[in-house]
Amino acid sequence: MHDADAALSVVPLTGIGEVQPGDDLPRKIVSSLEAAARHLENGDVIVVTQKVVSKAEGRLVAVDAGRPGAKVELVERESVRVLRRRGELLITETPHGFVCANAGVDLSNVAEGYAALLPQDPDRSARRIRAGLHRLTGSEVGVIISDTFGRPWRRGLTDVAIGCAGIAAVIDLRGSVDANGRELVATEVCIADELASAAELVMGKDRRIPAALIRGAPSSWFRPSSVAAEVIRPHGEDLFR
Amino acid sequence: MHDADAALSVVPLTGIGEVQPGDDLPRKIVSSLEAAARHLENGDVIVVTQKVVSKAEGRLVAVDAGRPGAKVELVERESVRVLRRRGELLITETPHGFVCANAGVDLSNVAEGYAALLPQDPDRSARRIRAGLHRLTGSEVGVIISDTFGRPWRRGLTDVAIGCAGIAAVIDLRGSVDANGRELVATEVCIADELASAAELVMGKDRRIPAALIRGAPSSWFRPSSVAAEVIRPHGEDLFR
Repeated sequence: MHDADAALSVVPLTGIGEVQPGDDLPRKIVSSLEAAARHLENGDVIVVTQKVVSKAEGRLVAVDAGRPGAKVELVERESVRVLRRRGELLITETPHGFVCANAGVDLSNVAEGYAALLPQDPDRSARRIRAGLHRLTGSEVGVIISDTFGRPWRRGLTDVAIGCAGIAAVIDLRGSVDANGRELVATEVCIADELASAAELVMGKDRRIPAALIRGAPSSWFRPSSVAAEVIRPHGEDLFR
Repeated sequence: MHDADAALSVVPLTGIGEVQPGDDLPRKIVSSLEAAARHLENGDVIVVTQKVVSKAEGRLVAVDAGRPGAKVELVERESVRVLRRRGELLITETPHGFVCANAGVDLSNVAEGYAALLPQDPDRSARRIRAGLHRLTGSEVGVIISDTFGRPWRRGLTDVAIGCAGIAAVIDLRGSVDANGRELVATEVCIADELASAAELVMGKDRRIPAALIRGAPSSWFRPSSVAAEVIRPHGEDLFR
């Protein structure tokens, strides 16, 4: 699939600063790279956090966090179904099909009195950023929009992909043979989530690093793609919905 | 937490070859690094896949995969509880507390007629590998044992940590403030799972690359640690058990 010696590098993009509705994220990403004397290359992957995408797209709503129930009402409005409820924490399904805490509604790193909602169509957001980066640099890159989700059974949050463009979300190794010539069954790897997690490691949560560059992904991973189509598990397939 | 410009590199360890019961994994890891003209440094992280750890520890059992029900019986024996069942696929809880498909029992990349079970105590396996690497090189590194798990709601598998030593499993950013000075609540990040996922990206599933080196992790992440203590969510805390 790729050179045995192929290493990946994961580089935080610094200096992007505060993002406002209408901001041009591709331009901010390119400026950050240039300030670090770096340039996009074909086959790079750019991971951008949901929060700055939501801000740039104006997905901010006023919420009176002081009024009891205000946040829960907002979460219910952003959900199609509530799976679990414990106090103010709701695990819900969003219209996109994501199952996550509080419908992905986020109050941290947002101006006081406001919450950031998920992008309406994160795959579209990724495609737009990818097109913008291509326009500015001529490079064909993969773009992943990441968010921080919890999961059952394991403590701690990890970053996953909520949208992608130009890089596979899931690669399918079914039909490949293992080292003993035995056919591998059902080995579908969600590389988009793994790339989002790798990017989180250089971003941290308490600092303004909303994007990362990953270099070294194998060329076979680059193709038209969609988290909605490849990662969201249809209800009928899911043993836990 | 770390330098804003700090990049991570993720390097596959090639040439480890077939692993047999009793093999000295630390020595194989060091030989692989030396063959690539690399040397372990303090603060490196080594990720090793469960399969070679299980093989080195002799966690192989004969299974007559041709006999209907043989695999399911083995999975049930390696489980403390079955959460879901669909045909031959069982989602079970292992004695360690992991919830995964088929109790982590693995038939691929194992000699015909044998299955690899999870290590009995993957944190202990990680500690032993860490001690072996220290003995051979003098370097203080973090070690993560990874395995490939599915998850509800999202298609595709990702690698997670089943054991670790010398590097935090979960880092706790509660009490930190966000960029607006608002206190972050409940931001516990499972860096061990994110490091395992990053490593998977360079290992692939159809090739014999059972380990990876990750360089560039911040020094604050290195401390005594345990997946069992930090990642396994106690039943009372879990909304989906």
